[in-house]
Amino acid sequence: MAVYTDVAAEDLARFLSGYDIGELLSYKGIAEGVENSNFLVHAGTGNFILTLYEKRVAEGDLPFFLGLMEHLAARGITCPQPVKNKQGGMLGKIAGRPAAIVTFLDGLWIRRPSPGHCAAVGEALAKLHLAGADFKLTRANALSIESWRSLYEHAKPRGDSVRSGLCAEIAKELDALEKGWPRRLPQGVIHADLFPDNVFFLGDKLSGLIDFYFACTDTLFYDVMVCLNAWCFEADHSYNVTKGRALLKAYNKVRALSDAERAALPILARGAAMRFLLTRLVDWLAVPDGALVRPKDPLEYYRKLRFHQSVKSVEDYGL
Amino acid sequence: MAVYTDVAAEDLARFLSGYDIGELLSYKGIAEGVENSNFLVHAGTGNFILTLYEKRVAEGDLPFFLGLMEHLAARGITCPQPVKNKQGGMLGKIAGRPAAIVTFLDGLWIRRPSPGHCAAVGEALAKLHLAGADFKLTRANALSIESWRSLYEHAKPRGDSVRSGLCAEIAKELDALEKGWPRRLPQGVIHADLFPDNVFFLGDKLSGLIDFYFACTDTLFYDVMVCLNAWCFEADHSYNVTKGRALLKAYNKVRALSDAERAALPILARGAAMRFLLTRLVDWLAVPDGALVRPKDPLEYYRKLRFHQSVKSVEDYGL
Repeated sequence: MAVYTDVAAEDLARFLSGYDIGELLSYKGIAEGVENSNFLVHAGTGNFILTLYEKRVAEGDLPFFLGLMEHLAARGITCPQPVKNKQGGMLGKIAGRPAAIVTFLDGLWIRRPSPGHCAAVGEALAKLHLAGADFKLTRANALSIESWRSLYEHAKPRGDSVRSGLCAEIAKELDALEKGWPRRLPQGVIHADLFPDNVFFLGDKLSGLIDFYFACTDTLFYDVMVCLNAWCFEADHSYNVTKGRALLKAYNKVRALSDAERAALPILARGAAMRFLLTRLVDWLAVPDGALVRPKDPLEYYRKLRFHQSVKSVEDYGL
Repeated sequence: MAVYTDVAAEDLARFLSGYDIGELLSYKGIAEGVENSNFLVHAGTGNFILTLYEKRVAEGDLPFFLGLMEHLAARGITCPQPVKNKQGGMLGKIAGRPAAIVTFLDGLWIRRPSPGHCAAVGEALAKLHLAGADFKLTRANALSIESWRSLYEHAKPRGDSVRSGLCAEIAKELDALEKGWPRRLPQGVIHADLFPDNVFFLGDKLSGLIDFYFACTDTLFYDVMVCLNAWCFEADHSYNVTKGRALLKAYNKVRALSDAERAALPILARGAAMRFLLTRLVDWLAVPDGALVRPKDPLEYYRKLRFHQSVKSVEDYGL
């Protein structure tokens, strides 16, 4: 949630002259995006988002991210659409950073989602998975199960300071996940981070999906479990089966789940919880004492993992 | 440059229903304003700025600030215009903070102002001073010469760590300023912080003035000296007489300077430099070692002060 790079008006006006979007009228650095610097740009032809890619985003991944947004938008998914410059390219450079301009989407993200919102996100995610089926580029998931053990090793020396016994529990769960992980389920383009702040609504209608900078090629139903974890638990970390059922049924209606996928639900849900538990734990431990910015609570995902471990059958999720 | 307070979409939609500006379509926290949280709001009838007043702004001052913007806008000064709610009030409450909605202004602030930009700001400031003449409210300048000695006392214990001998130089200058300060010059509403980032341009045309949260009642020509210090020095802290002449002549064309004001130019310029030297010095010393945010350099204003001390006559400024 920060603007990392300052952009001078004179430099931005020159940059925009390479596009056919009209004259620069105003721009504001916006508190959005964890990895990049984002600006809301008002130009002669409308509103746009300018993104400067900071060092945590690999420049080699940008054609995948931008190409995917273009591919999905062309197939009716409402997402930011990269604007091509006069040379036909989607990627430029400003203030020493790779940069792109995408269309601006109206919409609001919902802090207290209802079952109706959960159904809408389930449906949108299934449509995204179908629309991504013929996307030609691939990108390995840098935060797949293959990465989790090294994240764990990174957190291990001080992990128990967050919760007593946490590391032993993670180690045991990692063993179980690595042993039981389903590797033959349908794969494809996944969003991989479809939290409420990446889904826009206008009224009760879903109006857009944003932030494709974790998108990659991985198990489709795992992506649904990332959503389920993010959308269907209450503030007290209890699972809301009404919301879960709404999300899963809406997804299944657009892209029918196979028996193998249904059977894999609990372990995929555990894996999705583990991925966010681990990255949040590493981020938590990386913050110096007394820092002003407090990272997200890793124990939120520990509690979600505990729920998934306790589940007896797929029916408990409402599917 | 931060958003301090998080506002939920659901809460903002409810807040906006008290205004006649249409439905909430989107909002983004923007990196603007040092004291407050600001959001760019897209509503059914257009773009607006929502400001939440954080604790550093005294709630009792808000009627002055908002009333002044309304007063100036009604007299042709392009500045943000407070939007009245359905009860006719300009001030509401959201997320526990006093809040106001003002109109959004297009425009860009110039990082490398030309003499033409300096002339435009001089002309705009004179018009502001004239338009403010019949504004009924007053507000004492909390950062007037009366406050400087206590700022100095605050910085004194560690001030010399910034520059050897700095405190003695400040003390000597304060004595001179307090002794020679002109107290009978024309008073009125001053902006008091008209730095380049508070002045918008579209092309070469000045399109608006923003950020009235230091505005107060004080010596009009002192306000011009705040501008002169902010606009007419180069990056190496040398005075650019071409820019200074452009600013002063444009101001004088709209609001003719008296002989007493002209004679007071050097001491008012020194005072304006002292005010920013002192507040920057206090801010600089307040930042803990290793902090990520670096405050503005106080020595920039020390060097400007040194220039003003060395000047032999008013003509050296280009007036």
